[in-house]
Amino acid sequence: MRLSASSPSAALSKPMQQAIESFEFRTNGAGLSLIGTPIERWVATMAPSTGLLTLLCQHTSASLTVQENASPEMRDDLQMAFDRLAPRDLPYAHALEGPDDMPAHIRTVLSGVHLSIPVQNGRLCLGTWQGLYLWEHRDQPHQRRVAAHLLYET
Amino acid sequence: MRLSASSPSAALSKPMQQAIESFEFRTNGAGLSLIGTPIERWVATMAPSTGLLTLLCQHTSASLTVQENASPEMRDDLQMAFDRLAPRDLPYAHALEGPDDMPAHIRTVLSGVHLSIPVQNGRLCLGTWQGLYLWEHRDQPHQRRVAAHLLYET
Amino acid sequence: MRLSASSPSAALSKPMQQAIESFEFRTNGAGLSLIGTPIERWVATMAPSTGLLTLLCQHTSASLTVQENASPEMRDDLQMAFDRLAPRDLPYAHALEGPDDMPAHIRTVLSGVHLSIPVQNGRLCLGTWQGLYLWEHRDQPHQRRVAAHLLYET
Repeated sequence: MRLSASSPSAALSKPMQQAIESFEFRTNGAGLSLIGTPIERWVATMAPSTGLLTLLCQHTSASLTVQENASPEMRDDLQMAFDRLAPRDLPYAHALEGPDDMPAHIRTVLSGVHLSIPVQNGRLCLGTWQGLYLWEHRDQPHQRRVAAHLLYET
Repeated sequence: MRLSASSPSAALSKPMQQAIESFEFRTNGAGLSLIGTPIERWVATMAPSTGLLTLLCQHTSASLTVQENASPEMRDDLQMAFDRLAPRDLPYAHALEGPDDMPAHIRTVLSGVHLSIPVQNGRLCLGTWQGLYLWEHRDQPHQRRVAAHLLYET
Repeated sequence: MRLSASSPSAALSKPMQQAIESFEFRTNGAGLSLIGTPIERWVATMAPSTGLLTLLCQHTSASLTVQENASPEMRDDLQMAFDRLAPRDLPYAHALEGPDDMPAHIRTVLSGVHLSIPVQNGRLCLGTWQGLYLWEHRDQPHQRRVAAHLLYET
């Protein structure tokens, strides 16, 4: 990609670009939902030869994680594990929004709100079994926004 | 990397740039501190139209997390939750630096040391309630460094 | 960002570049392994003046974390802490692959699969005590792939 000022290759160079998008997902209350399909479709429209995708869940009681894309039992077990790691029955001071509120904040910290994923030949460099999950930590359904940034060249 | 305005295409193009900065924060012992203001100010000086901010806490006993920017009770509850998840009274082998040392390492792993945040129109793409926190996990006050990288175009 | 071939400033500019690499590591069963050396060597070959390194572990039962690079006791204690946070003896539904399988997924979520690290003068901007670890969460040795993306200018 090194450009010479006198070389016609400058005309052929593939300048690096950025794209930003905001995704909205409706959750059905506490649990993990696969969200990769619309995000992968968006990435593919830019036809990136090489790139870097960054996702940020713009909330404090829902998170993003990469986990096995096949087994629904795995999701139930993850939920059970997090119910145990951040239980409802601790003497929380921050309880105005209900008994699921503070556990939701803790679970969000534990699982994280952002992901960074290399991109090659138009596709995310995920492992065979990896899927992108949005994890709702509140009991009620919520509208959740995920900001996406793509750095890429075509 | 700014291009001369003598070429018409150069004048219209927005070359992509990088900036790196090191931030220092003094903590007051174990607890969460909002650190967004100086970081957002630094980002704004680059006047990025689009970009990506990456933060790395350069320590093994302090972390970075995104959480609710409003409630002090939420911070106390997070601290209580992590005191419980990584307690002092386990039979740690690594205890030379005191009973708060190994719990601090575990809490740092659980909450993470890096953040990636899309940037648009000069501002971080955070949700309304999201704030950037530095989380000190040692009992004593410490000087903590956070490395910041900004990829952007103006 | 496309440069005109007639402007001399184009010749002086340092165009931004990307590199992608795939690393393979053989683990010895559950535990933390330092993986920084081959990754730092790869970064150095690009001679980046400024850059951003992103790493993604392409599995759902092994993770990446930044922790103290010196103490083997710290690693044993981390393992003990995670054995306790995600124990084998919960009533998991997803247990076909053995009693270490679901705990491995939970530990991977808790510690994370990706890292983002600013780069300056050819080196990762890590703190003095920070090392890059691949954390195997299964009992048996595994071949693990880590995808690496470097954005940089020379």
